[in-house]
Amino acid sequence: MEAYLDNSATTRAFDEVADLVAKIMKEEYGNPSSVHHMGLVSGERLAQARETIASTLKVDSNEIVFTSGGTESDNFAIIGAARANKWRGKHIITTSIEHPAVLVTMEYLQKEGFEITYLPVDHEGKVSLDDLKSAIREDTILVSMMFVNNEIGTIEPVAEAGQLIKAINKDIVFHVDAVQAYGKVQIRPRAMNIDLMSVSSHKIHGPKGVGFLYIKKGTKIVPINYGGGQQKGMRSGTENVPGIAGLALAAKMCHDDFKNRIGKLYELKKYLIDSLNERITDIKINGPSCEDGAPHIVSLSIRGLAAETVLNMLSSKKIYVSAGSACSSNNPHVSDTLVAVGVERELLESTIRISMSVMTTKEEIDFFLDTLCSQVENMRMFYRH
Amino acid sequence: MEAYLDNSATTRAFDEVADLVAKIMKEEYGNPSSVHHMGLVSGERLAQARETIASTLKVDSNEIVFTSGGTESDNFAIIGAARANKWRGKHIITTSIEHPAVLVTMEYLQKEGFEITYLPVDHEGKVSLDDLKSAIREDTILVSMMFVNNEIGTIEPVAEAGQLIKAINKDIVFHVDAVQAYGKVQIRPRAMNIDLMSVSSHKIHGPKGVGFLYIKKGTKIVPINYGGGQQKGMRSGTENVPGIAGLALAAKMCHDDFKNRIGKLYELKKYLIDSLNERITDIKINGPSCEDGAPHIVSLSIRGLAAETVLNMLSSKKIYVSAGSACSSNNPHVSDTLVAVGVERELLESTIRISMSVMTTKEEIDFFLDTLCSQVENMRMFYRH
Repeated sequence: MEAYLDNSATTRAFDEVADLVAKIMKEEYGNPSSVHHMGLVSGERLAQARETIASTLKVDSNEIVFTSGGTESDNFAIIGAARANKWRGKHIITTSIEHPAVLVTMEYLQKEGFEITYLPVDHEGKVSLDDLKSAIREDTILVSMMFVNNEIGTIEPVAEAGQLIKAINKDIVFHVDAVQAYGKVQIRPRAMNIDLMSVSSHKIHGPKGVGFLYIKKGTKIVPINYGGGQQKGMRSGTENVPGIAGLALAAKMCHDDFKNRIGKLYELKKYLIDSLNERITDIKINGPSCEDGAPHIVSLSIRGLAAETVLNMLSSKKIYVSAGSACSSNNPHVSDTLVAVGVERELLESTIRISMSVMTTKEEIDFFLDTLCSQVENMRMFYRH
Repeated sequence: MEAYLDNSATTRAFDEVADLVAKIMKEEYGNPSSVHHMGLVSGERLAQARETIASTLKVDSNEIVFTSGGTESDNFAIIGAARANKWRGKHIITTSIEHPAVLVTMEYLQKEGFEITYLPVDHEGKVSLDDLKSAIREDTILVSMMFVNNEIGTIEPVAEAGQLIKAINKDIVFHVDAVQAYGKVQIRPRAMNIDLMSVSSHKIHGPKGVGFLYIKKGTKIVPINYGGGQQKGMRSGTENVPGIAGLALAAKMCHDDFKNRIGKLYELKKYLIDSLNERITDIKINGPSCEDGAPHIVSLSIRGLAAETVLNMLSSKKIYVSAGSACSSNNPHVSDTLVAVGVERELLESTIRISMSVMTTKEEIDFFLDTLCSQVENMRMFYRH
């Protein structure tokens, strides 16, 4: 038995996706820029992928630009919009709990002369619309807000923020980092007033190294890479056709029977949280309540135990979870998000993240619960920190 | 029968590579940043890939940074080195026949206040070392030169240029775009005084959407993307482990029995050129002589016929070649390289590129030759332009 519960770090590709990627690598290997038959076949794959993804969001296929992943999409959205709009002002608003792909990009822009306002969050990780409203100034050109927080699963009030921003100034570009939301939460960029939206493939059982940026028609943004002018000049570089086709297939599979799948994921999440509360003493579930948060992320603090101890024990039993956000393990430090939502000091380093996906089964959750429950008191006795 | 002779646009992945990519997507899907077993397995794959690639160049594995492909590698090298060295000066030297991933990046830097000198080339597409020497100034911080030209196969005097540059000023960063050279020409970055070198995976039968930048230890360069700080902070974004492992396998396969394979490729090229000259009248092979150029690229002008006509005829027979550089077909215009090497005006739009690879067989070349020979006079009669 094995339980992969680190799906917010990355997911296992759907078998169908992996097979499609290999098939295209072998059989449809043309460069979409080539004008011969092989190129046309690849171009058709690209067009189909664009259509498929657009249909999951009810947007136009020419509003999708493929990138190398979530980080590039965030960089492109934020730097590209900042540069295209700087003649109108140099003020940008974001939140204090964004992913490093947003936060570190903001630090770069600050060095380029932009001014950044970081909105605080409440104890559930939510941004306040009042705070957002107060932060918007005459020279605000961009608001960047994540849809679902990667550490505690908070769903931010994106639609309400979009409405508020556009009511104040329709020229403010609204970027949403939807890396943890796409495939888990229903997203309608148009109705939500989203101008730019970042998505990563490997978080939805697609290939690694690919993602997309939704760019609403008419949004002022400039490309941030330079070369052959692929994708109508918005993103140079030979298109990764196998990866893009794999992403599109994964997107389709995640959106087929969407409500049912997500409903089941919430049931699993509720079962996990209820079982943890029943079976283990002295723990805390961080972030919003089960149904208020995203369906796949549970942040759990276990008093008296270092996350590392728990992770290593679980890993030895083939159960995989993470401490904080895996994406930031290159810079190990206390999680800003956990501090921001007011997790008590003593619990900060005792927090693990369990992240599920549509592939997660009740058996895996039970395996995790049984293993953790059987070991936790033992660990507390020997490894209390 | 089919003949894919557009390998400088992109290549068919080795079957072993495609299978490995699919296998890793299914079985070793962990995020290398994760500290649990699945993450360690992926981290090990990454480390192995780095070792494999480094060994093909006789460099250290920690001098390899993975990117999303050749365009990103070129952007990273040029922008990253320019920004890191601008306090020393703002003068950059490149050549007039670079790929758009270099040329368009230079245009961007020009807007950021850098001054660019474009070196001319001779009728074989070669840069003159005297011109390079004259162009180097006190405030020169970067020289960027391609190793093999993508349109006519010229091999630039990279080693000599490296020696010259470093003799004048060892602080000048020397970047080489080796996208068309890696796997085709023996490259020793250290002996050649190369500081930065761009490589793309999909040109060597590896996966699309991945590449690397060789960064010589101690080279002054800053990252150009911002996020989770992966790859020691040099390139943020979850590593595309399946793609990277596929690239490493392709690199290994291209470098096994290297001399023998490349020798055979030169034989094939010689056979192709000799046969063309024997069997078709009024043609011109552009660029350097067979053995002076790269082993895989032949630029052919067919008087009186538009490249498009030839391409379409060939494509209808399942023979795939390109007109000029496929990478620039998004901006169709007369090739700067062909103009630079003095192809006569009348022949500019009558030029096709035949590009081979280690997969190309004599049967494919014969099929191409027989088809072209049997059709060329007919086409000249009906489609003379």
